[in-house]
Amino acid sequence: MAVRSDDRTTRRPEANNFKIALFADLHFGEESWTEWGRRQDSNSLRVMSIVLDKEQPDFVIYLGDVITANNIMIKNASLYWDEAVSPTRDRGIPWSTVFGNHDDAPFEWPLEWFSQITGIPQLHCPPSKGDEECSFRGTTRLELMKNEIRQNTLSYSKIGPKTLWPSVSNYLLKLSSSTDSEAAIAFFYFFDSGGGSYPQIISNSQVKWFQNKSKEVNPDSRVPEIVFWHIPSETFKKVAPKLDKLKNCIGSIFLEDVAAQEAEMGIMRVLEERPSIKAVFVGHNHGLDWCCPYKKLWLCFARHTGYGGYGKWSRGARILEINEKPFSLKTWIRMEDGHLHSEVLLSS
Amino acid sequence: MAVRSDDRTTRRPEANNFKIALFADLHFGEESWTEWGRRQDSNSLRVMSIVLDKEQPDFVIYLGDVITANNIMIKNASLYWDEAVSPTRDRGIPWSTVFGNHDDAPFEWPLEWFSQITGIPQLHCPPSKGDEECSFRGTTRLELMKNEIRQNTLSYSKIGPKTLWPSVSNYLLKLSSSTDSEAAIAFFYFFDSGGGSYPQIISNSQVKWFQNKSKEVNPDSRVPEIVFWHIPSETFKKVAPKLDKLKNCIGSIFLEDVAAQEAEMGIMRVLEERPSIKAVFVGHNHGLDWCCPYKKLWLCFARHTGYGGYGKWSRGARILEINEKPFSLKTWIRMEDGHLHSEVLLSS
Repeated sequence: MAVRSDDRTTRRPEANNFKIALFADLHFGEESWTEWGRRQDSNSLRVMSIVLDKEQPDFVIYLGDVITANNIMIKNASLYWDEAVSPTRDRGIPWSTVFGNHDDAPFEWPLEWFSQITGIPQLHCPPSKGDEECSFRGTTRLELMKNEIRQNTLSYSKIGPKTLWPSVSNYLLKLSSSTDSEAAIAFFYFFDSGGGSYPQIISNSQVKWFQNKSKEVNPDSRVPEIVFWHIPSETFKKVAPKLDKLKNCIGSIFLEDVAAQEAEMGIMRVLEERPSIKAVFVGHNHGLDWCCPYKKLWLCFARHTGYGGYGKWSRGARILEINEKPFSLKTWIRMEDGHLHSEVLLSS
Repeated sequence: MAVRSDDRTTRRPEANNFKIALFADLHFGEESWTEWGRRQDSNSLRVMSIVLDKEQPDFVIYLGDVITANNIMIKNASLYWDEAVSPTRDRGIPWSTVFGNHDDAPFEWPLEWFSQITGIPQLHCPPSKGDEECSFRGTTRLELMKNEIRQNTLSYSKIGPKTLWPSVSNYLLKLSSSTDSEAAIAFFYFFDSGGGSYPQIISNSQVKWFQNKSKEVNPDSRVPEIVFWHIPSETFKKVAPKLDKLKNCIGSIFLEDVAAQEAEMGIMRVLEERPSIKAVFVGHNHGLDWCCPYKKLWLCFARHTGYGGYGKWSRGARILEINEKPFSLKTWIRMEDGHLHSEVLLSS
């Protein structure tokens, strides 16, 4: 199977399986002015390298909060973004990305910098580059995505329709059959769930876009569909395991309340009513890694992959494996120390 | 008397008096996508025009919150800034500006826009201009100030030293004698009190800058000095009149608590210890217009001039009048309906 896009094809199109690694909440550039910050990024590079080498995935999905823009005080935050995708790129593995709430969050000046006698020692203004280098205001979603796509032939990310802006990472990819490249085995839908420069929501317009798109590519809802975005929706709260009651959930950390989007504007109702939707994958909560059944689909957290971001739970990555004949969708979590857990069959 | 800067001189250099109008909290561009918003701006233009025509000031100081950047969804917020200074410019009156907390605040997307079936009707993306017109992230302090200065020979504003960034509107102007253009009658110090893209503070570095500057231009502290910034410091809370106790304050509205800066990093201590400092003028609180004595100087609020911004108190502008021989500093408030009140002699 392979994802095909703009005359490009992912590796192993003849294979009967297709494996995806989800890298969630890497938070590159966090406290980028400190040694601590640089060390976290290098730790995150190591986690990704281990997962990629052990799992040898066909594709990687960066599930938002790739960078911590609110800590990045340079004009072009794509430099950190680029570092975050480098382990995947270096191995020739194709990928795609969605935005999280930190990716274009405005810079937050630490109050204590202003009380220092020395002023703000961390601001480097190269004299040759002129005043503008000393003045920055973040890199927009549009710029981040354009930079990623322009610089990387391995990126399968897309800039969504202009009518959906300010949400940008809205697009779909088709996984095509190993025997007939026209035939779809699955569709992957990517949504921008907001946050940072605008509210944390999936808008009514995005819902309409999904309805039109899915009707166009998969009119009779026969081909399985899988959904990816960053911030869990309210529905994740409903299914979340409580205290000792695991319900039918599978996972290893249940250490936080679900931090849901600010409002639900219809996407979940549409997804749960559509037979072909098998699962929704989100990041955002670093202390949750469960999959729970909800009606006829599954709601799943990824696993915190980055050393940036809050929480000290050991790092890992959720893996998805799709089999073509017979069709199945399986998932598990691969940890930095190599071990596997929380395997579950989501669809067959 | 006249302010002289870069080979330019304000009008009436031979006059014995110098009159300044303070325009505070105009908030141009507030809800700029609505008819209500446009009406507020046209009301604010009327207030300024009335004050300028009645008072015929020699100089205008825009005391911050010139625009409501958190409501401005275009790439270049200077278009609103420019409208705000237009009544002054149209009359050939010179001016200078300081920044308030709203001038470079990040755009705040109203949540309800995302739930509308129609999407976000207010986003105009001229197709000829390309994608970038649909993507905006505010206009920085540096850009606003550069645009103002470049486009206006009547602007006496300056970009402060780079070492003080992200605070930008830090500079001083000299008021020179009617008989000897070298002799200083007063110094005006302008500070950026932060807010918007960074914390609401006057930093330790700004304090040092003031100490060095004032020592350089007024070493023996003989020439009177007047200070202007946007957000009141903590000290304003100390002197604020409470309930029915006016103390020795003069004003007409006492309807709010002082909304002070986030922290005080030394500027007030330095000012109160320096004999030549006569008064500090701030805006920010629309429901306060008092002057209160504090040690040997005065702390004064301006008067809410704009129809933008919270509060429905009638609009006006604080006026300052400096006399050369004998030296005096007097202030009063001129209202939109023409009447005067709250006159007080601050120094003589």
